[in-house]
Amino acid sequence: MKDVKEVKITRVDRDKITSEDDIVAAELPFTIFVNDEEIVTLLCSPNSLKELTVGFLYSEGFISALSDIDKIYIDEEKGLGYAYINNINEFSKDFRGKRTITSGCGKGTVFYNVLDSFKSRRIEKPLHVNIESIKSLMRIFNKRSEMFMKTGGVHSCALCSMEEIIVFNEDIGRHNALDKVFGKALLDGIDTKDKMVLTSGRVSSEILIKAAKRQVPVIISRSAPTSLAVEISEKLGITLVGFARGEKMSIYTGNSPF
Amino acid sequence: MKDVKEVKITRVDRDKITSEDDIVAAELPFTIFVNDEEIVTLLCSPNSLKELTVGFLYSEGFISALSDIDKIYIDEEKGLGYAYINNINEFSKDFRGKRTITSGCGKGTVFYNVLDSFKSRRIEKPLHVNIESIKSLMRIFNKRSEMFMKTGGVHSCALCSMEEIIVFNEDIGRHNALDKVFGKALLDGIDTKDKMVLTSGRVSSEILIKAAKRQVPVIISRSAPTSLAVEISEKLGITLVGFARGEKMSIYTGNSPF
Repeated sequence: MKDVKEVKITRVDRDKITSEDDIVAAELPFTIFVNDEEIVTLLCSPNSLKELTVGFLYSEGFISALSDIDKIYIDEEKGLGYAYINNINEFSKDFRGKRTITSGCGKGTVFYNVLDSFKSRRIEKPLHVNIESIKSLMRIFNKRSEMFMKTGGVHSCALCSMEEIIVFNEDIGRHNALDKVFGKALLDGIDTKDKMVLTSGRVSSEILIKAAKRQVPVIISRSAPTSLAVEISEKLGITLVGFARGEKMSIYTGNSPF
Repeated sequence: MKDVKEVKITRVDRDKITSEDDIVAAELPFTIFVNDEEIVTLLCSPNSLKELTVGFLYSEGFISALSDIDKIYIDEEKGLGYAYINNINEFSKDFRGKRTITSGCGKGTVFYNVLDSFKSRRIEKPLHVNIESIKSLMRIFNKRSEMFMKTGGVHSCALCSMEEIIVFNEDIGRHNALDKVFGKALLDGIDTKDKMVLTSGRVSSEILIKAAKRQVPVIISRSAPTSLAVEISEKLGITLVGFARGEKMSIYTGNSPF
């Protein structure tokens, strides 16, 4: 399945009404099975499905390392992913409870328990924000989103050092885009503890918690954070930057650039 | 809990770095119980929680009419909502299975089953799109989003006739914003079959299906639709308009304005 799809549209521009070809972002229902049990159907862009599977399984606590996965098989045509996990340990079971909250399903516990469980997981290695680097990285980041340029309908996400973008991905969902980036980092053995996450999307508590689980010390967004994202960042020692656009940005939490 | 929250930020603008007060959108973890069973924790803006509860219960198939609910109690401070439902009937059970798909949780069936179940639910009353009305409604819609103006971090959604906006709401999540609007319509007995939905957010299949369940014939978005949203609109006879901005818009499906 291609990332984008051609459609016929009627374009209106003032008094001009024309029939035209246009391009929209493809949306694939992608169902993940763990040890042959159906776990979830994600609505996603159809690229990087292996990365998405690995990233999702980590975010949702099914695995705590790549080595927990014995085998992954992706059927791109049918939109099916099969993961065989050898080690659903206590650590991952602890996290797994939270899946129900961040994705909005039926077996959740009250949310603030999640925050409690993160108290002990403050960022180990703070990273000093270099403002000029962020401006430069965001310029490159914005230019790189090909799917967005074509469709205007996807979010992009990147993992980068202070110098360059190391992993980049796009998806119709901002959560999926981040999971794809983290999945790639896990598959390639890229350390996330000394990296930054760039995202085009708003930073809600869900995004923040995904990044915190990977011990990412800095999150930079082109958009706004929510109050809960700011609170959790503060608690965990994460640097959170929003509205990073051109020469401007707002630093919500973290070490000051003064 | 207020809709917005004051925070201290460090603002960067070229070489100028200043400490300032700023405002972010509040994010509340809101847990819904149905007949004392915990169902879901939504991460949402803390306004209109009764509307959100009713809209969510309808979207997820717990109810098929307002009369299915005996009692609703909302604890705003604690972020808890309790609904007592007298009639979880076959119809609602059919829909309930789909909750697991649209929200991404553990008990889903393969997605295309959802599309099958919608085949028979084509829009009964098509509504002719009046382009000048849409331009005018979108202007009013854009100006009305107070939370967005303050925070830049929320989505807005409205139900309207060709003449005016009838229900309006905002939320950090575009799904919640739509559920709040439909919840209000259910509570006030407003017919949705001859109305349009306006949204600031992207239109994915989930948004489309929520609107289809309420038999809304026209969806207008400031943003992009996905391929699956276009496909489902086509199948169900829904008029789908995207990128409605100023004098421009793209009509993806539905009756042509020629």
